[in-house]
Amino acid sequence: MEFVSKKIKKHNFFAGPAILPAPVLEEAARAIQDFEGMGLSILEISHRSKQFESVMNEAEELTRSLLGLTDDYAVLFLTGGASSQFYMSAMNLLPQDGKAGYVNTGAWSTKAIKEAKLFGQISEVASSVDTNFNYIPKGYDIDEDFTFLHVTSNNTIFGTQFQSFPETNVPLVCDMSSDIFSRPLDINRFGMIYAGAQKNLGPAGVTLVIIRKDMLGKVDRAIPTMLDYNTHIKKQSAFNTPPAYPIYVSMLTMRWLKANGGLSAMEAKNKEKAALLYKEIDENPLFKGTAAKEDRSLMNVTFVMNQEALQDDFMKACEAEGCVGVKGHRSVGGFRASIYNAMPIESVEVLVQVMRRFAEQHA
Amino acid sequence: MEFVSKKIKKHNFFAGPAILPAPVLEEAARAIQDFEGMGLSILEISHRSKQFESVMNEAEELTRSLLGLTDDYAVLFLTGGASSQFYMSAMNLLPQDGKAGYVNTGAWSTKAIKEAKLFGQISEVASSVDTNFNYIPKGYDIDEDFTFLHVTSNNTIFGTQFQSFPETNVPLVCDMSSDIFSRPLDINRFGMIYAGAQKNLGPAGVTLVIIRKDMLGKVDRAIPTMLDYNTHIKKQSAFNTPPAYPIYVSMLTMRWLKANGGLSAMEAKNKEKAALLYKEIDENPLFKGTAAKEDRSLMNVTFVMNQEALQDDFMKACEAEGCVGVKGHRSVGGFRASIYNAMPIESVEVLVQVMRRFAEQHA
Repeated sequence: MEFVSKKIKKHNFFAGPAILPAPVLEEAARAIQDFEGMGLSILEISHRSKQFESVMNEAEELTRSLLGLTDDYAVLFLTGGASSQFYMSAMNLLPQDGKAGYVNTGAWSTKAIKEAKLFGQISEVASSVDTNFNYIPKGYDIDEDFTFLHVTSNNTIFGTQFQSFPETNVPLVCDMSSDIFSRPLDINRFGMIYAGAQKNLGPAGVTLVIIRKDMLGKVDRAIPTMLDYNTHIKKQSAFNTPPAYPIYVSMLTMRWLKANGGLSAMEAKNKEKAALLYKEIDENPLFKGTAAKEDRSLMNVTFVMNQEALQDDFMKACEAEGCVGVKGHRSVGGFRASIYNAMPIESVEVLVQVMRRFAEQHA
Repeated sequence: MEFVSKKIKKHNFFAGPAILPAPVLEEAARAIQDFEGMGLSILEISHRSKQFESVMNEAEELTRSLLGLTDDYAVLFLTGGASSQFYMSAMNLLPQDGKAGYVNTGAWSTKAIKEAKLFGQISEVASSVDTNFNYIPKGYDIDEDFTFLHVTSNNTIFGTQFQSFPETNVPLVCDMSSDIFSRPLDINRFGMIYAGAQKNLGPAGVTLVIIRKDMLGKVDRAIPTMLDYNTHIKKQSAFNTPPAYPIYVSMLTMRWLKANGGLSAMEAKNKEKAALLYKEIDENPLFKGTAAKEDRSLMNVTFVMNQEALQDDFMKACEAEGCVGVKGHRSVGGFRASIYNAMPIESVEVLVQVMRRFAEQHA
């Protein structure tokens, strides 16, 4: 499998569900018709069949290998999206009389804080709400008594990203939905990582949850069986029927990631793509970035236009060149180009050309 | 789309994830490569795109049309399987001082009872545990004060099915995971229906939840946003990113159901297939049905062999003719042939021939 697809039909800048590698999609389509020569579709085989158990095992092994996870960490493939981890993380990790800190860097952090408040004392240690979340707060105190410190590593809507994580001995719980597998990590900093699949990992319908097992066992509240991480750890994510196909496509994507050099190689490519696009934003007189430069995301590039009247024309110019999904989130406005792992640099080059030509036409 | 596939490679008797209609699988594979001529895979488009919103709307409309639902009912596409509805139904419907009745007809009912006990007073009104759940209890009292009566309409493991639902004014909450859309229903009897998709509805990864809205609003406990049915009703199952592809394939399956005559036509076909297989079980000297005759399931046909030593040979004989998934659940033993809506009668005929030939060879 190669990094760049030979037949790019569209340049897919959707924020999520988002672009997947072309060779992954080819194999994903084949498995719908006939999986592993079984004469059956992957959609209609038992999750207890040896063929599917092998998919589950490989998905876990690839996660461990890409992130360098020791046996101290459990790897789960659950459902319900990151939105379900907002409450499940606090429900499973935070004693009722416990305290946890949250860094509020956007819409998703805000939701995580709201849900966690049902389960313990939540302290918002820092927030960038004052400037519509266009930066990552720095230089705040972190109570050593926190059970965990929650951060959202990348903020899809606002185009900001933690370039480095807060320095603290408190274990981090991190919503990594929109930048997991985009760069190497010091995994020892993390007590838990969760990520909805539909950006860098796979299609919508599965959520990756990684937990250091010593984070568990500290709460005594009654937890429904399906909401207890221990249930899924004991049964290797197959206590009930798992979301089989989303897990399969995620496994294929991780195979592709590994075959293409793993996280270091992804980071290098992601930096190259982001540099290209931010350079154009900074140099082009028509456009302006919305995020603080030092906190700019390598995944979601947000920018606005200096002449609002031209916005619709620019969207049309993008679409005419096959660039789709460039519209900004309503709470920021303007434009957003999501350039996840699977995005080839050729697509970013096309967008840069569209921006340049558009500026020349409207000089 | 036709009822019988012209190119049956395997006869798929898996209990779930289970057989899907061949024309659905063809279209499902095409959408992975290019969805609706967008030049993009359905796996990599925004759930807010107009193309995907149209899938969501059609899935809801087809559910309403197949079941004859009025606006009194909400239709949701959630995640977490029926196993999550075991606790979510009680959490959302049952006040802490309220009472609900449960009919215990097998492993899934038993789990539903266990989870519901966290949220109110649960009364097991009847159970067939005494004979390893091989019948559906009848003739028990139902307290008129119950908030709801919970039943599992079809018991995949034990091969039993409610032929008619208990006579009561108490609204039924029904786990219909393994026989939804297999027969017409008097929908007015039901306060709530839920079903994991992976039998008659679609692939694993989505759960259909149908709620009569007047069942809600009776509890005052704190419920995390993602676990509150009202959240998903207000946002038409798109509060967060829904499991897009499992919903899409379910929508295709419902299109196929409707094009092939809807629930009455399915029931007629299902009765014909089941009659053929049960007749062979009753007449063949080697086999014996495990479920009480009057409660036999039209979906999961469970049977054992009179000569245990021949079990493995029979499994091999099945597989030699392309019949896969015929193994019984470990708690019943023997064999189970699941013959859901999408199973063509030709596949059942092949299995019957295998059984007949095997009996002749071992007479």
